[in-house]
Amino acid sequence: YDRKHPTALNHQPNSPGPGGGLCFADGCRRVDYVLVYHCKRRQSQHRHSVVSNGNVPTPSRRSTKGDISEAVLEAGLGMEPPNEPQDKIREEFERRLQEEGLEIEHDKEVCIYVCMVITFWTKINQPFQPGVPEPQDPRTRVLSQPFSRDKLHLFDIKSKNSLFSNAIRGRIVYEILRRTACTQTCQTMGISSLLAKGVYDSAFPLHDVSIVMNDICVLQMLHEEWANYGACYKYQPMDLIRKYFGEKIGLYFAWLGVYTQLLIPASALGVAVFLYGCLTVDTNVPSQEMCDEHLNFTMCPLCDRVCDYWQLSSICSTARASYLFDNHATVGFAIFMSLWAAVFLEHWKRRQRCLQHSWDLTGMEDDEVRKPDTGTDDKGREKLLSAKGGQSPLASESLSWTDRLPGYCINISSILLMVGVTFSAVSGVILYRIIVFAVMSMNPDHEAKANVRVTVTTTAVIINLLVVLVLDEIYGAIAAWITELEIPKTESTFEEHVILKAFLLKSMNSFAPVFYVAFFKGRFAGRPGDYVYVFKDFRMEECSPGGCLIEVCIQLGIIMLGKQLIQNNVFEIAIPKLKKMYRTYKEEKDGSADEEDKDSKREPQRWDLDYDLEPYEGLSPEYMEMVIQYGFVTLFVASFPLAPVFALLNNVIEIRLDAAKFVTEIRRPDAVSAKEIGIWYNILSGISKFAVITNAFVISFTSEFIPRMVYQYLYSETGTMHGYTNHTLAYFNTRNFKPGTAPHDTDFDRQLRICRYKDYRDPPWSPESYQLSKQYWSVLAARLAFVIFFQNLAMFLSMLVAWLIPDMPRSLKEQLKREKALLMDLMLTEEINFWWLGGGSLGWLTRGTSFAQNHQLYWRTECRQVQLVHSGYSGIFMEPSDMAR
Amino acid sequence: YDRKHPTALNHQPNSPGPGGGLCFADGCRRVDYVLVYHCKRRQSQHRHSVVSNGNVPTPSRRSTKGDISEAVLEAGLGMEPPNEPQDKIREEFERRLQEEGLEIEHDKEVCIYVCMVITFWTKINQPFQPGVPEPQDPRTRVLSQPFSRDKLHLFDIKSKNSLFSNAIRGRIVYEILRRTACTQTCQTMGISSLLAKGVYDSAFPLHDVSIVMNDICVLQMLHEEWANYGACYKYQPMDLIRKYFGEKIGLYFAWLGVYTQLLIPASALGVAVFLYGCLTVDTNVPSQEMCDEHLNFTMCPLCDRVCDYWQLSSICSTARASYLFDNHATVGFAIFMSLWAAVFLEHWKRRQRCLQHSWDLTGMEDDEVRKPDTGTDDKGREKLLSAKGGQSPLASESLSWTDRLPGYCINISSILLMVGVTFSAVSGVILYRIIVFAVMSMNPDHEAKANVRVTVTTTAVIINLLVVLVLDEIYGAIAAWITELEIPKTESTFEEHVILKAFLLKSMNSFAPVFYVAFFKGRFAGRPGDYVYVFKDFRMEECSPGGCLIEVCIQLGIIMLGKQLIQNNVFEIAIPKLKKMYRTYKEEKDGSADEEDKDSKREPQRWDLDYDLEPYEGLSPEYMEMVIQYGFVTLFVASFPLAPVFALLNNVIEIRLDAAKFVTEIRRPDAVSAKEIGIWYNILSGISKFAVITNAFVISFTSEFIPRMVYQYLYSETGTMHGYTNHTLAYFNTRNFKPGTAPHDTDFDRQLRICRYKDYRDPPWSPESYQLSKQYWSVLAARLAFVIFFQNLAMFLSMLVAWLIPDMPRSLKEQLKREKALLMDLMLTEEINFWWLGGGSLGWLTRGTSFAQNHQLYWRTECRQVQLVHSGYSGIFMEPSDMAR
Repeated sequence: YDRKHPTALNHQPNSPGPGGGLCFADGCRRVDYVLVYHCKRRQSQHRHSVVSNGNVPTPSRRSTKGDISEAVLEAGLGMEPPNEPQDKIREEFERRLQEEGLEIEHDKEVCIYVCMVITFWTKINQPFQPGVPEPQDPRTRVLSQPFSRDKLHLFDIKSKNSLFSNAIRGRIVYEILRRTACTQTCQTMGISSLLAKGVYDSAFPLHDVSIVMNDICVLQMLHEEWANYGACYKYQPMDLIRKYFGEKIGLYFAWLGVYTQLLIPASALGVAVFLYGCLTVDTNVPSQEMCDEHLNFTMCPLCDRVCDYWQLSSICSTARASYLFDNHATVGFAIFMSLWAAVFLEHWKRRQRCLQHSWDLTGMEDDEVRKPDTGTDDKGREKLLSAKGGQSPLASESLSWTDRLPGYCINISSILLMVGVTFSAVSGVILYRIIVFAVMSMNPDHEAKANVRVTVTTTAVIINLLVVLVLDEIYGAIAAWITELEIPKTESTFEEHVILKAFLLKSMNSFAPVFYVAFFKGRFAGRPGDYVYVFKDFRMEECSPGGCLIEVCIQLGIIMLGKQLIQNNVFEIAIPKLKKMYRTYKEEKDGSADEEDKDSKREPQRWDLDYDLEPYEGLSPEYMEMVIQYGFVTLFVASFPLAPVFALLNNVIEIRLDAAKFVTEIRRPDAVSAKEIGIWYNILSGISKFAVITNAFVISFTSEFIPRMVYQYLYSETGTMHGYTNHTLAYFNTRNFKPGTAPHDTDFDRQLRICRYKDYRDPPWSPESYQLSKQYWSVLAARLAFVIFFQNLAMFLSMLVAWLIPDMPRSLKEQLKREKALLMDLMLTEEINFWWLGGGSLGWLTRGTSFAQNHQLYWRTECRQVQLVHSGYSGIFMEPSDMAR
Repeated sequence: YDRKHPTALNHQPNSPGPGGGLCFADGCRRVDYVLVYHCKRRQSQHRHSVVSNGNVPTPSRRSTKGDISEAVLEAGLGMEPPNEPQDKIREEFERRLQEEGLEIEHDKEVCIYVCMVITFWTKINQPFQPGVPEPQDPRTRVLSQPFSRDKLHLFDIKSKNSLFSNAIRGRIVYEILRRTACTQTCQTMGISSLLAKGVYDSAFPLHDVSIVMNDICVLQMLHEEWANYGACYKYQPMDLIRKYFGEKIGLYFAWLGVYTQLLIPASALGVAVFLYGCLTVDTNVPSQEMCDEHLNFTMCPLCDRVCDYWQLSSICSTARASYLFDNHATVGFAIFMSLWAAVFLEHWKRRQRCLQHSWDLTGMEDDEVRKPDTGTDDKGREKLLSAKGGQSPLASESLSWTDRLPGYCINISSILLMVGVTFSAVSGVILYRIIVFAVMSMNPDHEAKANVRVTVTTTAVIINLLVVLVLDEIYGAIAAWITELEIPKTESTFEEHVILKAFLLKSMNSFAPVFYVAFFKGRFAGRPGDYVYVFKDFRMEECSPGGCLIEVCIQLGIIMLGKQLIQNNVFEIAIPKLKKMYRTYKEEKDGSADEEDKDSKREPQRWDLDYDLEPYEGLSPEYMEMVIQYGFVTLFVASFPLAPVFALLNNVIEIRLDAAKFVTEIRRPDAVSAKEIGIWYNILSGISKFAVITNAFVISFTSEFIPRMVYQYLYSETGTMHGYTNHTLAYFNTRNFKPGTAPHDTDFDRQLRICRYKDYRDPPWSPESYQLSKQYWSVLAARLAFVIFFQNLAMFLSMLVAWLIPDMPRSLKEQLKREKALLMDLMLTEEINFWWLGGGSLGWLTRGTSFAQNHQLYWRTECRQVQLVHSGYSGIFMEPSDMAR
């Protein structure tokens, strides 16, 4: 495929040849949409295509309906009578599509496609069209209006073939496909239920090299300037992406771009914090003390019986590594990242507003709000119901609360079950660590013993990572499945619910192990002489003596990096490749069984090539990946300041990887219009708020920041950190070991009376021996006070940032005002027969006004093609000085 | 005055007689606005009125301008040449007003007024008009459109006199007054600067008994059904209020209504919590223990030398009273109130949406957003500049950042100064308490000594209250003054800044004393043997032995109630009365000096009566009072659960008091249009968020809730509260008193070794004697943990509430959709020459289109009078079934 595609890209629009097939058999009507089905006629699985388009007039046919009517033309198959029920359904569906005004043509090798009639006028105009590069004066902005058939004379229609952009034509056809009902044969509605029933195999628009912008092929430009690792330092060509893929995908890449861009300062500061740690590690008193062999702290053994006492100075390197991530600068960085999150969200709001304006989406609002109410109300339900077995659309109307109850119950219990599964997985890994550690510690080999901790930790994290990856895939499927049981009222509700559930499950899955290490590990281990045991024999695990923070760091680093690398390489590159190889292999096998066809096989058409590509599976997985990454970047940034750097490196590649996927590896997605990124924004905002709390707790409870501060200002006699290590270690009298738990073989003095352990407890000689000491409570109070301080400070600063950054840039505000004034002036002074509608309707384009009331679909034509024609006003945006009259 | 007004109310529209004067001298043109100035002609201060109106045509005069042109008619004074500069300015201003299309007539006794020409057609129609009660079918809703002169034929204009409602006519005139510039004589613009210069004395529209709704006089209905204590259990007649006073005032009363309504459940629960306290006080172990004389706790003296040891059981009553406000139920109530605040804010949003819809404000949005940018840009600045001394409007255009810097500096330093003043006031009262307490304690009289604390506390709180009241008035003035120095860009910015500053200062002023008592009092008093002294001799004050909470309760109760009572009675009733009495007195004095006029004095006209009323001073003071009250209700509700009850009682009266003020005691305000309550909503939301934090701290640190919990679950051996009192009292060895501080005369055993004090400190016999004990730190940790828990729980629940309650009621959503569909249908199928504009412009009403571009003012006529005329569509709202075609 990779070999073929570049060839196709180089083709001029409408030129015949291999990879052609962008037009109907007559070579002039453009193909807007392809429907594929399997035909059992010749006992083999042949694929068949339906290519449909609409809305260019053949005035001779439906001249009664106005200037732009829908032309219908069937270059049908008709070779055999429709026998099977699926064929019947297909026949009815296609007949109704034609009634809606679409033209359908079956492919020569049992394909159907629909295309566009280029009128004589267009034919004459067409050769000149590319020769005239469009004026791209940056001062020019074309005002656009919702298209209306009745007001045709107001629009500046240069060519009826280019009146609507390719993306919009695809969308129109998709809408018609979605709404066309089969009432006689199967009582369902829309292509999606037909796909679910297997009447059609797939439905997609074609990749189109004939879309040009300023004389250059858009697809080729996207290929060169966007889906190319060489271009990874450049901005993305947003307008081209939107032109080719529609607003929804455009917004995704715009969001990804903004996120990646803002990761740059965060990464820079993260690296600076890390470097600060590297530079000051030698002047840091606590780690110096831990490395100082003269201080001679004899620590209590790490496991019962088989483990020996040990010198604190032996973990010097861990202590030093820990300091790299756990120093004063980290606290400042955590506050900075809270602000960063607020700035990111505000900045995205502004960018979104700008895009809405330049993509003409501002007016969409009202209809979008209204749409879920009834617009797609019936559709959504029907789609879901029919996907579940094709009940009549009427049956779903009467769903009462009690009908939904079982669905809700299954939902809640499934989610609880999944939560349970996640926690079991985490607990399983903990048990693995505890047991393997205990077992391996019994190994008499000293060499092996030294590496026990490293081995156990590494293997456990890798198991964790694998569990996370596997459960991630399962949870995605479960979220969609249980939401369908809920029978949500509208399509957008359905999507939101799936996303929310999938996010809940997947984020829990990804973050639970990190949460465990950060906040729970080692806190229930007990103390020497009174350890906590699981399964009677195994001691609860403790953090490594260097502190829990370094373990959080390792856990986070491996899960985040591993997830990214594996998801990018395996799920996004390797698996599609394998799938394709398998398909090609199967095809060849079929092909050899189907030998007689081989001779008649012609040059592959565009739709053959596109059918070979992977189907488009929505943006949710892409968003989900990035949102989980955003969680890793913000939630635990206090323990791992390098997270933004890794995210940045990943995203620079991710953008181009996704781009290449969209341009060359999947079938062209339907160009869906969208005004915002929707529920994802709320999720991001929720993560940012939660991140303030987790970071407060990480700094207070996981890092050593607070104990150090408390020591320095409350207990240290010199006001310095000297003596801190001694202060954090409690005393244990070795006589108090429970029988059989003392080390039975030791390199240390057998008469050793006192060993040390890391805790704030009263010494054995105190009246309240081994009780939590006053220091413990004062440090705890300081920790909690810091949480309150940090949380409120970060929240206040975030609110301040949100308040200081206006949602709309001042320049855009002024431009909107000027545009509105201009438009009003135009309408007022010249009294054109023009009405300004908040929303138009797709219906007008296809069936006239009566269609419009029931299907309130927002419709805007692209600004470039449909514009107000008016002397002195069309196109040129007036400067304020021009308006002062 | 009160005697006269009801008479005026009973008059039929346009009937002559005393209290008349709603029309011009010809008895038919309606008076829309009155301008008053002082004339020095006869050496006495006479008042003169200008009554201006607009927009009813005398086609003979300006017939070239279209159907509705502005008629100008001067029935001027012209008795003497304008000599003084003020007269010249006035003359130019009025000439320009006439050029704008207003009619002006001077009153017979040197008044000018402007009124409305009722055409012949109107005259015939008018007597029938009130005979036809308007259809008020609840199913009917009239769709309204912005008015346009060019599309006159589209509107259903029954009478040109009633085309625009009285409120809108006043607004139109006000807009013209505001914009008319005097360029020749004084280089200023608008009536506000002329008022500031003293060219005019005042400008206001008239109270109008001729406004009717369903045949009943609106003013009279408001008087009977709204501004009446007898109606205080009823809903407010919102539509009438809005009709008479405009949307802005309507929204204020709607908000006050919603707030009062929602106070009912809060009050009920508050009373329940209080009653729970009353009922369980006898079973409460800690207060039983404190009252138990057998336990015999001898407490350390409360002051040096002169005070004696005392028995804890002597403060039994305080302990019991304290429990009434400090029990388990209070904690639940505090959480409930956080939710209540969230519900209130969400509920108000919904109510506001509904009002926006029924008052036709939904479309205003865009213009409101835009308006601050340039619309009133110049105006705002000019108004401010001219108010400050009348520089040329052009001079203000070039204000750069450096020009504003001094203003900002003065702002910041003033605010800091005021903050300093507030803290000084609070500190002053503290010092007063400390010193007076010390002095009075020296009184050898035992009777007097017993009452020392009560006397000191009461007088101190009253002083506090007086300081708060005085500073409140001063701060209001200062906020306005320093904001003028800032020269804000637009009028709305100006208003917002004034409100924010005034709120900052006033709330600090009101809450600072309560904050001090709740969080600081007694925390810096030291301990026996090591007290903290101020001025060397005076011990820092401690809370009463019953705990700080009861003191917070008293402080809060007195300040809140006192502020409400004094503000309602003194500021809103007594002072206006006094002012009026003074004015009447002065008038009479003037009148007697001006004897020759007395004979020619005719029956007082409507404008004479209205001029005698207090001028309208904006809604800010009303909102401010309520917002500060909201602060009292939410911020410290954990310490005073009865706050909502008192607020409720106050508000039920407040609504009627304000209503009476608006209806009978002040001049009629300009009917300003407003879509939302604006910055006040943000302030309320900020208070609600802050309240979560204060309540968390009040429960943790001020109440005894946490120490009790810690004792019960951590230290109590029986798991009950028995022994709690002993646990909270530290031991003090009387030998450790500093020399000269021990009681020199005691009723107790002279050999008493140990006295007790309320603190968590180690006993004298411990190695760390008098150090903070382990209990102290564990209780502190528990307190802080509770703050974190409470804050996050309340925030989460509030977010949940905000998420669960949609901003728009479902029914409204559906209705909006149906209306839009109907309108679109109307326009589509019938192809009327109608355009739908996002915003219209006042300019069209007065000078045609060229005026419109520079002054983008949103303009909507009232729905009742201006409506679409269309067969089958006008008025009747179609049910969904009608639309299914």
